[in-house]
Amino acid sequence: MSQLLWQKPGVRVDARIQRFLAGEDVILDREFLRYDIRASRAHAQGLQRIGLLRDTELAGIERELSALDAAVVAREFVLDERFEDCHSAIEAWLIERLGDAGKKIHTGRSRNDQILVATRLWLKDQLARVDALAREVAEVSLARAEAEAMLALPGYTHIQRAMVSSCGMWWAAWAEAFIDDAQRARDTLALIDANPLGSAAGYGINLPLDRDYTTAALGFGRLQVAATYAQLSRGKFELAAVEALGSATLDLRRLAWDLSQFTSAEYGFVALPAEYTTGSSIMPNKRNPDVVELMRAVHASVAAARTELEQLLSLPSGYHRDLQFTKGAIVHAFARGLGALELLPDLLRNLEWRSERMQAALEPSMYATDLAVDLARQGMPFRDAYREAANPARWAEGDSQVSLQARVSPGAAANLRLDVLRARLKGLR
Amino acid sequence: MSQLLWQKPGVRVDARIQRFLAGEDVILDREFLRYDIRASRAHAQGLQRIGLLRDTELAGIERELSALDAAVVAREFVLDERFEDCHSAIEAWLIERLGDAGKKIHTGRSRNDQILVATRLWLKDQLARVDALAREVAEVSLARAEAEAMLALPGYTHIQRAMVSSCGMWWAAWAEAFIDDAQRARDTLALIDANPLGSAAGYGINLPLDRDYTTAALGFGRLQVAATYAQLSRGKFELAAVEALGSATLDLRRLAWDLSQFTSAEYGFVALPAEYTTGSSIMPNKRNPDVVELMRAVHASVAAARTELEQLLSLPSGYHRDLQFTKGAIVHAFARGLGALELLPDLLRNLEWRSERMQAALEPSMYATDLAVDLARQGMPFRDAYREAANPARWAEGDSQVSLQARVSPGAAANLRLDVLRARLKGLR
Amino acid sequence: MSQLLWQKPGVRVDARIQRFLAGEDVILDREFLRYDIRASRAHAQGLQRIGLLRDTELAGIERELSALDAAVVAREFVLDERFEDCHSAIEAWLIERLGDAGKKIHTGRSRNDQILVATRLWLKDQLARVDALAREVAEVSLARAEAEAMLALPGYTHIQRAMVSSCGMWWAAWAEAFIDDAQRARDTLALIDANPLGSAAGYGINLPLDRDYTTAALGFGRLQVAATYAQLSRGKFELAAVEALGSATLDLRRLAWDLSQFTSAEYGFVALPAEYTTGSSIMPNKRNPDVVELMRAVHASVAAARTELEQLLSLPSGYHRDLQFTKGAIVHAFARGLGALELLPDLLRNLEWRSERMQAALEPSMYATDLAVDLARQGMPFRDAYREAANPARWAEGDSQVSLQARVSPGAAANLRLDVLRARLKGLR
Amino acid sequence: MSQLLWQKPGVRVDARIQRFLAGEDVILDREFLRYDIRASRAHAQGLQRIGLLRDTELAGIERELSALDAAVVAREFVLDERFEDCHSAIEAWLIERLGDAGKKIHTGRSRNDQILVATRLWLKDQLARVDALAREVAEVSLARAEAEAMLALPGYTHIQRAMVSSCGMWWAAWAEAFIDDAQRARDTLALIDANPLGSAAGYGINLPLDRDYTTAALGFGRLQVAATYAQLSRGKFELAAVEALGSATLDLRRLAWDLSQFTSAEYGFVALPAEYTTGSSIMPNKRNPDVVELMRAVHASVAAARTELEQLLSLPSGYHRDLQFTKGAIVHAFARGLGALELLPDLLRNLEWRSERMQAALEPSMYATDLAVDLARQGMPFRDAYREAANPARWAEGDSQVSLQARVSPGAAANLRLDVLRARLKGLR
Repeated sequence: MSQLLWQKPGVRVDARIQRFLAGEDVILDREFLRYDIRASRAHAQGLQRIGLLRDTELAGIERELSALDAAVVAREFVLDERFEDCHSAIEAWLIERLGDAGKKIHTGRSRNDQILVATRLWLKDQLARVDALAREVAEVSLARAEAEAMLALPGYTHIQRAMVSSCGMWWAAWAEAFIDDAQRARDTLALIDANPLGSAAGYGINLPLDRDYTTAALGFGRLQVAATYAQLSRGKFELAAVEALGSATLDLRRLAWDLSQFTSAEYGFVALPAEYTTGSSIMPNKRNPDVVELMRAVHASVAAARTELEQLLSLPSGYHRDLQFTKGAIVHAFARGLGALELLPDLLRNLEWRSERMQAALEPSMYATDLAVDLARQGMPFRDAYREAANPARWAEGDSQVSLQARVSPGAAANLRLDVLRARLKGLR
Repeated sequence: MSQLLWQKPGVRVDARIQRFLAGEDVILDREFLRYDIRASRAHAQGLQRIGLLRDTELAGIERELSALDAAVVAREFVLDERFEDCHSAIEAWLIERLGDAGKKIHTGRSRNDQILVATRLWLKDQLARVDALAREVAEVSLARAEAEAMLALPGYTHIQRAMVSSCGMWWAAWAEAFIDDAQRARDTLALIDANPLGSAAGYGINLPLDRDYTTAALGFGRLQVAATYAQLSRGKFELAAVEALGSATLDLRRLAWDLSQFTSAEYGFVALPAEYTTGSSIMPNKRNPDVVELMRAVHASVAAARTELEQLLSLPSGYHRDLQFTKGAIVHAFARGLGALELLPDLLRNLEWRSERMQAALEPSMYATDLAVDLARQGMPFRDAYREAANPARWAEGDSQVSLQARVSPGAAANLRLDVLRARLKGLR
Repeated sequence: MSQLLWQKPGVRVDARIQRFLAGEDVILDREFLRYDIRASRAHAQGLQRIGLLRDTELAGIERELSALDAAVVAREFVLDERFEDCHSAIEAWLIERLGDAGKKIHTGRSRNDQILVATRLWLKDQLARVDALAREVAEVSLARAEAEAMLALPGYTHIQRAMVSSCGMWWAAWAEAFIDDAQRARDTLALIDANPLGSAAGYGINLPLDRDYTTAALGFGRLQVAATYAQLSRGKFELAAVEALGSATLDLRRLAWDLSQFTSAEYGFVALPAEYTTGSSIMPNKRNPDVVELMRAVHASVAAARTELEQLLSLPSGYHRDLQFTKGAIVHAFARGLGALELLPDLLRNLEWRSERMQAALEPSMYATDLAVDLARQGMPFRDAYREAANPARWAEGDSQVSLQARVSPGAAANLRLDVLRARLKGLR
Repeated sequence: MSQLLWQKPGVRVDARIQRFLAGEDVILDREFLRYDIRASRAHAQGLQRIGLLRDTELAGIERELSALDAAVVAREFVLDERFEDCHSAIEAWLIERLGDAGKKIHTGRSRNDQILVATRLWLKDQLARVDALAREVAEVSLARAEAEAMLALPGYTHIQRAMVSSCGMWWAAWAEAFIDDAQRARDTLALIDANPLGSAAGYGINLPLDRDYTTAALGFGRLQVAATYAQLSRGKFELAAVEALGSATLDLRRLAWDLSQFTSAEYGFVALPAEYTTGSSIMPNKRNPDVVELMRAVHASVAAARTELEQLLSLPSGYHRDLQFTKGAIVHAFARGLGALELLPDLLRNLEWRSERMQAALEPSMYATDLAVDLARQGMPFRDAYREAANPARWAEGDSQVSLQARVSPGAAANLRLDVLRARLKGLR
């Protein structure tokens, strides 16, 4: 490592220990570098506003931060083990190019609030992505719910055939599920949309930092007021974000379960385009729905991130190096989670129902509940009607369309109320 | 068990298996029974509105549900292993007292939506309690932050002495933390505030149920529209609620860590009233801060509930018996979590600072950051000032009040902005 | 609570706080009470051996401990909120009946080592039960593997039809899985089979306690030597035990998944006796495999216990009240886990294959791998043979018996090597 | 990607989807590549033994596998996104260099058993490393326990001063703890020391594979007999290994907690060499024990791996693509866990006690338990002695050496029984 900001003369540095300390930090910091540059610009502007930087110094810093950002985008600058972390890299870049002005960039800030603000900006972008993808899934689902409202689909409980359902009901369920997930991503974004910059090492600083300015400049919804809470929320806000992601990936897991079963030979209800499948190295006959399976698996990685974050957070207040591991957890979780969610809208758009197989799976017993309710409507107390309808002699080949047309309770096949869902979705745009 | 709703002639029932199936269900259902009664009343009213119950039948059902509720409150009726679950108990009670009218109560509903609606109402009450308690903690913290704004407290990072801090900063941190937790409890309450009643077994029903009526009657914020999603959200909504609770208990864990250390002989910063401590069976000298330790431990139970819920939810859509275990998880988590949060406001009100110990722990090195920033303000580039201030020869006994008075960055001791926090808290009332 | 061992004059006790502290402790301690009695007897004998109890005092203590044990068995003595915990109950019982001799029982021990030794004995019994049940499952599986060695069963990967398999291969898999689980239960039992009694509060005591005697008297495999480690292993040993249980319940989860699918209409490979199924409150037609589903769900509870234990254990060495929560975690996990495992052998004995459905699910493509390997055996390089066999034109209706008879690789249908498994199982007896 | 083993003409491959499918697989497979090469050699030898490969073909394959292995070591061959995974890379290498002989390497095996055997060999090496490191920690601890047997150290419970303890007791605790961890690593290694090679896709193969030969050639302790169980144990064995690692990192977490506190200004019991600490970017005065904190944090990553593995394993039997994610989990966990454990022995060797601080923390009350027991030894019933000794008027400045010399219960300061621990450790060598 070329340089340690805090290194003092005479203190021996052990390479093996430094390697352990650095870990993957510098690799992970690639995710945060551009956010750190952005926050560094706002911090410099704030310093100029309170007279800690001259106008020309600020101009130099802004210019060099832009140059660094461009170099990162162009891959001319790559963050690697020459640096302890992204913060050191930025400071080193500025000092090398600007001398004393560069040495002023860290006035009134700590790497503690620097990583907090970069992480916060990064998380906001990730959550916005979850929100957008969840809404896109809901859109696709609503469109297909409308188009396939009355396409009969066997309805299951306990993986056992239960009642006639419809593709409309299935799609509407996922639409509402992902609307909730979008809502949650948004609520979470709003919760963490607070600016920690200017809290320094968690105890503030003897400077009248213009935190209101940096809050506005960085587009935060509010100031994270208490300097000590800025530190205390490290990990807590990450956890909230991962949990919001987890809400969507948990739904994805159940959706993928449906598709995994529906694409099996036993069900045969759904056909996936070939590009969503792979083959076997030994069995020449196989086409496997690997994409769907990895979608199902992704929640495990999100859950793992949560475990990692949460176990780290059994600590007194104040910064502790343990918190360094929060970075890997969130990067891993969002990479996996968003990677899967990004493929989902197209997958849903492209899956094809095999209506003949669906129809073939509807058996007489699946109309028994309709019958019991019909008897009840005619005046027989339901518990008696239930016993009557339980008699297999009363079961007969039913007409799925008749059954679905009669399913008029709000939210059922003949009364999906997609307009209500559509209005709620529109409200989230 | 006296009666199984679904039992059919000729099917053998094995006692050992029934015991495994019932599990603690009936005990847990005590939590939900009164909510189920309330939802049953709304359901009956809905049935009357669409002509499925006569006015006199409804009147009978309402009367007997009230009687049952009163009997539960008076502990004259105790849910026990005579019943499969709370749903069966209610139906049995009505049938025994009302005959055919009782047999009609289950028309158009399933135990599936019945437990969903009861759980939803229960969770809403729990979250409202989390919200209220988090706000109360914030109130206490704000009051003490104001009163003790400039009381010097050593500030730590890495459990190492870092800078002079203040009780004001410490309290303000917890105030803002618990305001966020209240916000989250509320967002979550709003997210799950959707009526699943009328979704039946997840596929709706061939009756024009008046779900808008029951939504309003039960005080839900909106209808959970899609019948299939009502089922799909089983466990998902519970998880969201437990995660919201977990946000508060995670903060509590860190707060308890602070108190655990501050009450140790080594720190000695805080004295707790004797009733918060216990003794040892062997060591006559001990007074242990057990309450604080259990507060710290409580998050483990909340996290366990989340693990339990989440691992259950790797399933295709539709109801599965696995979901029965969601009940124990949430009951356990909220009992533990709320039990601890309920004791917290008084504990915070009553803890006493030992200022002489706090003052004694402030060492010269803790003013070094002040010095570095002072030098930077006088024009020395910060990175040079940092090196200068790192020289122990420059450290001297400082004055904590001077240090705190100069800490003017927003959110620091001399500029706590409690009014901003107070306004946000007021907005949550 | 009638009495607190450590209570001192003038210290106020707050009922609400005591309730929080006690939690469910006294209820949970019912699990440990008889083990505590047993360990108390050994401790008393040890005290007599070093002259701290007279022979007559020991005789009195032994008599009264036996009486208490008998009263517990007869339910004449019930541990309830009159007591702080099982330890206090035992001491109170002895003092009430024996006076000074009773007051001597706690000489040289702490509630810390008292709960450690009771828990250790309890865990050993639980693990022995896991071991025995896992071996019983393996026995049943081996017997059925032999009987149904060549009964053709479709083999799946990715829930897609892959190759012809056999019931013999399926059963042999579970046999070996549960043999491993038995092995693990045993290894874990041996790991925790160490006597903590005599470590007092974690720092030993100024008495020459005869720990070798109590180790032998209580049937421990070895002394847990270091007094401080006895405390440090609180939670660690519980975790190891829960993980060993989890190995079995994780296999159970996958086994239950197989059965859940095999009993569905789509597969129809397995029929379960009616007593393993239940009905629906609304759908008259349903018979649901609830037992299988709860078996699948049980691992979630075991995993939850692990989360709870592990999150508690982020602590410095020494006893902390946080550790009280370890009790609920293990009691819950083993109750759920053993409850499910106990039903498993009979379920496996009684399930019936539906060979016609299994046969019907074998399609021509499932013989393609056989073909590719046949071509390879005849000299065609495998990668070419694979391509050749991937041509659907080469697929034809195969004979499952021919396919299975040719499956001669060790561990495959025609070469199950059940004798090897049987020998390993025998080695565990 | 250059080549997909299973690709068939006419099937479109979508780059975005392939990227999602590949994930980090090829990067992770670098960990397993050399193990796969080793297993491929054994597999080829096995094929030659049953006549599927000619001697010259085998010779060619062995030569080229050695060449590949050498190229990997020399970093001349780097596994990257040109390949789907390490298995494809090996086959491609052989085909390119050997033509038809290379096309034969996959005869009778699947990527399923190929990754199983490579993972198994890798895990065995990791566990052997855990075992060795745990034993090294125990050695260091035993040596220091002996050297510092009577060095007085305050003993804590509830982070409150409790009794006089000694460095000897502290070190002996960690020695026994890590001996248990070594034992567990070994038991786990033995449990998973079973050869899955030859199980093909989980259903065996129509070839008389010589699995006994490959078992011996690869140094496995036994054959994993059942072909279907080989698949079923995917994830299960990984989980067992991660749990064994977790036993050591959990102890490490508690040890790191002790050190974190002991190195604080408040305790001041321990001094760490400077190379184990780092500085702050803003606070010139700080030296932080970051190494210790990351050691404490490491268990969170191990726990995360377990969550990830376990959540993946809610599946029916047979291979599923979900299982691909098991690789990242174990690589991450062992990298973190072993990285920390590797630094531990030296850290323990080099830490220095500050006896004057330790002595200063011993207060009169910490001798109260000694007093109570002394009174009991003189005949006063312990419960009365306890009350007597609880009177602060009876407390006086004690002599820590006298206290420790009297602590004669086995495992306490004056009777550490290090020889017993040393014998057990020797038994593990």
